[in-house]
Amino acid sequence: MKKVPHRLYLSEDQIPRQWYNLRADMKEQPDPLINPATMQSATQEDLTPVFCTELARQELDATTRYIDIPQEIRQMYKVYRPSPLIRAYQLEKALDTPARIYYKFEGNNTSGSHKLNSAIAQAYYAKAQGLTSLTTETGAGQWGTALAEACAYFHIPLTVYMVKVSYEQKPFRKAVICTFDGKIIPSPSDTTNVGRKILAENPHTGGSLGCAISEAVEAAVTTPGCRYVLGSVLNQVLLHQSVIGLESKMALEMLDEYPDVVIGCAGGGSNLGGLAAPFFQDKLTGKANPRIVAVEPASCPSLTRGRYAYDFCDTGKITPLARMYTLGSDFMPSANHAGGLRYHGMSPILSKLYHDGYMQAISVEQTKVFEAATFFAKHETILPAPESAHAIYGAMQEALRCKQSGEAKTILFGLTGTGYFDMTAYTAYQEGTMTDYIPSDEDLQRGFAGLPQVPGQPE
Amino acid sequence: MKKVPHRLYLSEDQIPRQWYNLRADMKEQPDPLINPATMQSATQEDLTPVFCTELARQELDATTRYIDIPQEIRQMYKVYRPSPLIRAYQLEKALDTPARIYYKFEGNNTSGSHKLNSAIAQAYYAKAQGLTSLTTETGAGQWGTALAEACAYFHIPLTVYMVKVSYEQKPFRKAVICTFDGKIIPSPSDTTNVGRKILAENPHTGGSLGCAISEAVEAAVTTPGCRYVLGSVLNQVLLHQSVIGLESKMALEMLDEYPDVVIGCAGGGSNLGGLAAPFFQDKLTGKANPRIVAVEPASCPSLTRGRYAYDFCDTGKITPLARMYTLGSDFMPSANHAGGLRYHGMSPILSKLYHDGYMQAISVEQTKVFEAATFFAKHETILPAPESAHAIYGAMQEALRCKQSGEAKTILFGLTGTGYFDMTAYTAYQEGTMTDYIPSDEDLQRGFAGLPQVPGQPE
Repeated sequence: MKKVPHRLYLSEDQIPRQWYNLRADMKEQPDPLINPATMQSATQEDLTPVFCTELARQELDATTRYIDIPQEIRQMYKVYRPSPLIRAYQLEKALDTPARIYYKFEGNNTSGSHKLNSAIAQAYYAKAQGLTSLTTETGAGQWGTALAEACAYFHIPLTVYMVKVSYEQKPFRKAVICTFDGKIIPSPSDTTNVGRKILAENPHTGGSLGCAISEAVEAAVTTPGCRYVLGSVLNQVLLHQSVIGLESKMALEMLDEYPDVVIGCAGGGSNLGGLAAPFFQDKLTGKANPRIVAVEPASCPSLTRGRYAYDFCDTGKITPLARMYTLGSDFMPSANHAGGLRYHGMSPILSKLYHDGYMQAISVEQTKVFEAATFFAKHETILPAPESAHAIYGAMQEALRCKQSGEAKTILFGLTGTGYFDMTAYTAYQEGTMTDYIPSDEDLQRGFAGLPQVPGQPE
Repeated sequence: MKKVPHRLYLSEDQIPRQWYNLRADMKEQPDPLINPATMQSATQEDLTPVFCTELARQELDATTRYIDIPQEIRQMYKVYRPSPLIRAYQLEKALDTPARIYYKFEGNNTSGSHKLNSAIAQAYYAKAQGLTSLTTETGAGQWGTALAEACAYFHIPLTVYMVKVSYEQKPFRKAVICTFDGKIIPSPSDTTNVGRKILAENPHTGGSLGCAISEAVEAAVTTPGCRYVLGSVLNQVLLHQSVIGLESKMALEMLDEYPDVVIGCAGGGSNLGGLAAPFFQDKLTGKANPRIVAVEPASCPSLTRGRYAYDFCDTGKITPLARMYTLGSDFMPSANHAGGLRYHGMSPILSKLYHDGYMQAISVEQTKVFEAATFFAKHETILPAPESAHAIYGAMQEALRCKQSGEAKTILFGLTGTGYFDMTAYTAYQEGTMTDYIPSDEDLQRGFAGLPQVPGQPE
């Protein structure tokens, strides 16, 4: 085996020139998006009022295996990529494990997370199409920050509907978005019909991600030259995020390494889908058989306790229907500091792969996540985001099993970002006031009760 | 000229094996530290009750040109170093300048700044000496965070005296330090004589950096097995920070580049002294003659408006006297968001070099600093700390002069860290509520009036 540095940086010439489209290697495809108005498969025409034309095309493209990354996007990737592949020497030593642990660290950019990889692509295509503005929603703020950064770079105005409770609790996220000239509207707002309706019913609501999505979509389709962009769940997002996995695989190959297990945190699936994409390819094509593990919060367990069913992507129920593991768009995830994982559904691609046995999933309570995060921070000296710490927890469990069995497995996990804006959560953990909320079976039933009726869908 | 990547990372084998001790090449030495009790030059025996033995030795060593970096320190450097040398392609384009701008980015570690380079060294030597605890002070929090991170790594307990107003205003900094098991005491406190005295005189004071230093030193000298550590000003700190300059110079050489001008922000001098060290060497030995420019806040202008005189390093007046550019230890810097630059004095080494004409200095108001920071963030997609943004301002001014003159100069500046914990300041800038405080001549006279009488010192 080659000598492994602590941090392996590829050269900028090694930044992928093409994204990898996982669907091209899936023998069984995810079920198509459905237009709820017609109950037919969504067409490009259905999607283009909401999404950029090229992004709508990518959303529906299940056959092109590799898609060229435009020069302008690669140019901005070069500003912060390749991201390092880090050998967790300190963590291995602290755990006294024979396992070799690697993590792909996506927090080394101002947005602080992997979200920038897709934000740049989406902002670029919007600009190239001649659009004059974009809308999006943000909860925890990683996506809003990343998209604001990308829009500042491509000079395209952005309006961010930010969940009101986050807007009030996270003034620092707001300030970063404003630094990049993003316009922020606390949601629900009086700027949209759906917002006004919700406010009329409940003037003091703190809002929700689903509501913010509904407002952002409404604003996009009612504003000339404007489209809506989304940071997770969608096929196009997994496509863009494949740079994470492609770089990881290339770096591991340079070290003569191949992972026995690939671990990612899972909310909507953007990071895990990107990180694991080329390893799923190996499984689908029979070249290799690494285990792929999703780690989700016990408070929002779409894979481990959800249903594989058609559902809306938003609580306002105005988006197309996607077949995915879901807790129901009416499910209200209980409070959890990993805001980026508080989503009722899961990427349709990952849902299908999970359903077909290509992926495993575990769920974990947030106090255990913060215990892992703190342990990791002390030894690896990177302060992880709570979302990312789910993957850390999964990797540590694997490494401890290796300690018991004596196996020197190779573990790869995705460290999606830093926790600088999550110190309230760390403080709650340190002060012992953090609580674990786990939905009861009754909570889940209430969510499932709101699932839409789709003809031909299994119960 | 070679093709220049956006980010140049040296390999971990290229991390320097020795620090560079600038004093060894200074024909005229900085004036010695003076023990205020005896008014004689401070000896190693005077310093060892306060500092680790090896650090006291380094503090007084003016002759050893290169000092070996212990293996244990290099080992932890490998966790986050080498730091990238970044070519500011986006900034150059936005400024439409023929200049080539490079910056050494030290913010890619959890502490978020260059402070970690010296914190690791100081924590290591303390552990190696068998000390059982350390004390320090922190204002803005960068140093406290870095030292807590280093102490967690070397398993040595740390008590941080944090300026009370910062403790209350910056709960997130506190939370990071606690993640690394640092114990924080808001200063002034009732744990020291000097703290109790100040509290008795003024129960509602928000504290000051000088007071926190006094408390940390008192706690160190009255606790068995404990010593005090400091993150700037001292010769030992500049020594450790020379890794910044050594890496920068090596990376530029690989690109066939040499800077016409080297720019750093200047508070106590830790970053500028480290970044510029090998370039000062070239000036002192006649090999090259780059301009070296310190950029300091107009609110705390020790170089541009201070006196070159002996002064205490703390407001409690219990430290040795250092000859440096100073505003007087009684000078109370007016409010400024670049907390890391709010210090009345300047590194004695840099003070001497400035006094002898090897360095230039400019001062800048904070609104101009935040204007530069915001411009930089949008184009280079790194959110800079307010301290670091002083150097950005200086570099942008140079680049704009190049645009006027048509000269394609090579500019190197130090980007010391990220601004994630400074969003209150960014918000004030965005909302237009940021004010520029510039001390009046009377303010300065009040500071100078408190300078100690030292026999033989020029008026």
